Amino acid sequence: MPGIRVTVWNEFVHEKKHSAVKAIYPEGMHAAIAGYLGKQEGLTARTATLDQPEHGLTEAVLAETDVLIWWGHMAHEEVEDRIVDRVQKRILEGMGLIVLHSGHYSKIFRRMMGTSCLLRWREAGELERLWVANPAHPITRGLGPYFEIPHTEMYGEHFDVPQPDELVFISWFEGGEVFRSGCTWVRGRGKIFYFRPGHETYPIYHNQTVLKVIENGVRWAVFAGNTEMSEGYGKHVQESIETIRSINH
Amino acid sequence: MPGIRVTVWNEFVHEKKHSAVKAIYPEGMHAAIAGYLGKQEGLTARTATLDQPEHGLTEAVLAETDVLIWWGHMAHEEVEDRIVDRVQKRILEGMGLIVLHSGHYSKIFRRMMGTSCLLRWREAGELERLWVANPAHPITRGLGPYFEIPHTEMYGEHFDVPQPDELVFISWFEGGEVFRSGCTWVRGRGKIFYFRPGHETYPIYHNQTVLKVIENGVRWAVFAGNTEMSEGYGKHVQESIETIRSINH
Amino acid sequence: MPGIRVTVWNEFVHEKKHSAVKAIYPEGMHAAIAGYLGKQEGLTARTATLDQPEHGLTEAVLAETDVLIWWGHMAHEEVEDRIVDRVQKRILEGMGLIVLHSGHYSKIFRRMMGTSCLLRWREAGELERLWVANPAHPITRGLGPYFEIPHTEMYGEHFDVPQPDELVFISWFEGGEVFRSGCTWVRGRGKIFYFRPGHETYPIYHNQTVLKVIENGVRWAVFAGNTEMSEGYGKHVQESIETIRSINH
Amino acid sequence: MPGIRVTVWNEFVHEKKHSAVKAIYPEGMHAAIAGYLGKQEGLTARTATLDQPEHGLTEAVLAETDVLIWWGHMAHEEVEDRIVDRVQKRILEGMGLIVLHSGHYSKIFRRMMGTSCLLRWREAGELERLWVANPAHPITRGLGPYFEIPHTEMYGEHFDVPQPDELVFISWFEGGEVFRSGCTWVRGRGKIFYFRPGHETYPIYHNQTVLKVIENGVRWAVFAGNTEMSEGYGKHVQESIETIRSINH
Repeated sequence: MPGIRVTVWNEFVHEKKHSAVKAIYPEGMHAAIAGYLGKQEGLTARTATLDQPEHGLTEAVLAETDVLIWWGHMAHEEVEDRIVDRVQKRILEGMGLIVLHSGHYSKIFRRMMGTSCLLRWREAGELERLWVANPAHPITRGLGPYFEIPHTEMYGEHFDVPQPDELVFISWFEGGEVFRSGCTWVRGRGKIFYFRPGHETYPIYHNQTVLKVIENGVRWAVFAGNTEMSEGYGKHVQESIETIRSINH
Repeated sequence: MPGIRVTVWNEFVHEKKHSAVKAIYPEGMHAAIAGYLGKQEGLTARTATLDQPEHGLTEAVLAETDVLIWWGHMAHEEVEDRIVDRVQKRILEGMGLIVLHSGHYSKIFRRMMGTSCLLRWREAGELERLWVANPAHPITRGLGPYFEIPHTEMYGEHFDVPQPDELVFISWFEGGEVFRSGCTWVRGRGKIFYFRPGHETYPIYHNQTVLKVIENGVRWAVFAGNTEMSEGYGKHVQESIETIRSINH
Repeated sequence: MPGIRVTVWNEFVHEKKHSAVKAIYPEGMHAAIAGYLGKQEGLTARTATLDQPEHGLTEAVLAETDVLIWWGHMAHEEVEDRIVDRVQKRILEGMGLIVLHSGHYSKIFRRMMGTSCLLRWREAGELERLWVANPAHPITRGLGPYFEIPHTEMYGEHFDVPQPDELVFISWFEGGEVFRSGCTWVRGRGKIFYFRPGHETYPIYHNQTVLKVIENGVRWAVFAGNTEMSEGYGKHVQESIETIRSINH
Repeated sequence: MPGIRVTVWNEFVHEKKHSAVKAIYPEGMHAAIAGYLGKQEGLTARTATLDQPEHGLTEAVLAETDVLIWWGHMAHEEVEDRIVDRVQKRILEGMGLIVLHSGHYSKIFRRMMGTSCLLRWREAGELERLWVANPAHPITRGLGPYFEIPHTEMYGEHFDVPQPDELVFISWFEGGEVFRSGCTWVRGRGKIFYFRPGHETYPIYHNQTVLKVIENGVRWAVFAGNTEMSEGYGKHVQESIETIRSINH
């Protein structure tokens, strides 16, 4: 019994180019996240990166993925459109998607949202405080009324995304901005969670609260819906269920 | 003072190929809709079609369009991606979009939704009854609790779109299905209204109630928001509003 | 380990007054529902009725209830306001609530919604077909694209409730109406599911699909959120988190 | 032609008891707000207060009110339940409601929401910066990306209200909190706007941006929906629209 099968995708570029980033994540951010998740009850985790064939996201890998986690930043445009098509298709079928931080501008996130996904930003190493805006939500399980990240890049409103189905976290930034830092949407049969924390130059994916929220997100995003409707929605039904009488009126 | 400037787009293929369709709409469905709208107080209407240069949707035309109405069916794939990009950009800036009937599978609608937009369908000329599900909504102005279309193609659930921000109409079909026939979404600064009625082989765009709903939709979809935020959302702000002290902690 | 603790509440009036109803539910509808739920993996079920002291909903019973199921019809006004206050308080703290059929007009449902909760209705024993409008939702687990109830009372739009957070089922009725038959809302930390089927004169709570949906609803409605915020939201915080400098400006 | 008819309700207690408040609002906050609104194109404004017969909210006054603005703080419990019933009824029929600041805990707002409406608060005269979270919304018309109130009482999350239909503003507070400061909901045919600014000890209702937002709110909240459905929703329809055949199956 594999439990929930997670694939953590990372463009894995900064960690190889910048020694400061490498010092924080010697094996890449994906390894840090997958390392944590793989140790949690009922979860298994693998990784995939941009430089692998098909970016590591073959049909076979996606077929065995219940929840995909996405981190990208400087190499969004290098992701091939046919892989984006494939990931979108799997999400609509029911694969969960968790988009982290700068993944807000990834091809797959913009594809799923339909908007520019642009935002206001500043890199000044400032304090962020994430307030729980929806304590009924399982993603907030085990948190208090807020948690803090001592040094981070700022993302501010307006965040150009469709109004989320559920707004889970709102961030306060020391420099004066706010941000909808935890948002969920359903697309097709797939559940999507955007979670803001995670700049490459801060050890945010070693923060136990951040990792706990990602774990909560995985458990929330796994498909639990109607398995009997897996054949797709577009359907030409020639025979009506009820007798149609109006034609002869 | 031009009032609200509407552009009615039609692929304009069926009307030229099929004499039965031509008999109903001799100058095309776009002409029927624009003819009605252009006579309403405070509205002006123009048309655009697939076979025109840039499908009639040049930068200049879009810049002068407050609300775009879209009808397409058999030629969705012939719409150029660069025109779809351009229309999406204008919607995100604030142009309203009304998508009619088989436009559910147009490139622009799928682009804005992020989902397959597939549905169940049957062409049997059956009765449709559209129930008002949100009487507070201006799109329902002047209607009773429901209105009917005597003969129509059926569209049934599940309709694979993001949950609408507002559900305005739900259809009952004689053959046994239901459908979310009036749905609205906000994307960027643009407002989108999907309205189901309108198959090419029935005189639905001569129906006064259908035309009235489209007019209501135009008045609802026109941008009325924050004109002071027109410069775009992605912004690198190097200077913080408040003094950042945490860096030296 | 008690698992999920369900309390099934019934006004239990029709079953005692009308022999036709008694024939279908000799021990009451609550007994039929609780009998089914109590046999499911991980669930325990008890019942409570109007004629018991405090309507069977003492502080102790509610404290031990994870999900409350509510059925009422002719005796809504006999429910004491202080019990309604108590139930509302528990829902806001995190108890799930499932409201069945004519419970749409119960004091507790109207209290939670803030609207009239009125609807259109007809009792003609007609066919109802419930279409799945959200196949990503766990409440639809195990269903096909729709299911049917051969003879039922009709409820039709407009249903005067706040737009649901999630629309799960839409009903088609033989007599010509539609209805939002499965709706969810979050209120405080509590999750609410309204499920339409269940008139007293039809054996609807012996229907295995209906019972399965109620079971799915129970599993969905149980609190899974932020247990660390249980102390209540109203809080006067005299000390600020950050130093406030603007006062001396 | 009276245009949009606004009634500004104020409990009008602080202004009479505390000289500091009286100095800011010699004739009461209601007079300041109504004075501004009455001068705007297409609006007329009257006032009503707690100490008037029926709190100034007679059937006749409500019948002539398109949008009701509500401010209360220390005297919420003195508002009679029968007047709350009457106001709720009018909102469900289509009267708009704008609730200001401490009105979050008024009987009418809690009635419409169904939740505790509690929040976190602190009175330290700190800076508030309201960020526009929905630039497509007419309530944000004429604003930039944010506006500021130099000294105010803080309200912080979690704000125990139903997830808003539209989230318009998010506040940043100098002391470290965030708040959903502009929220809208539809209830029945009525539109509701909660707007946070406005503590009695600061001259906030003399701030031109705050007044402009209230004016925008009034124009948004006025009923523009389906006047043909004014007779109420609860309806026993004995005759079916379609012939029902299943009874004899």
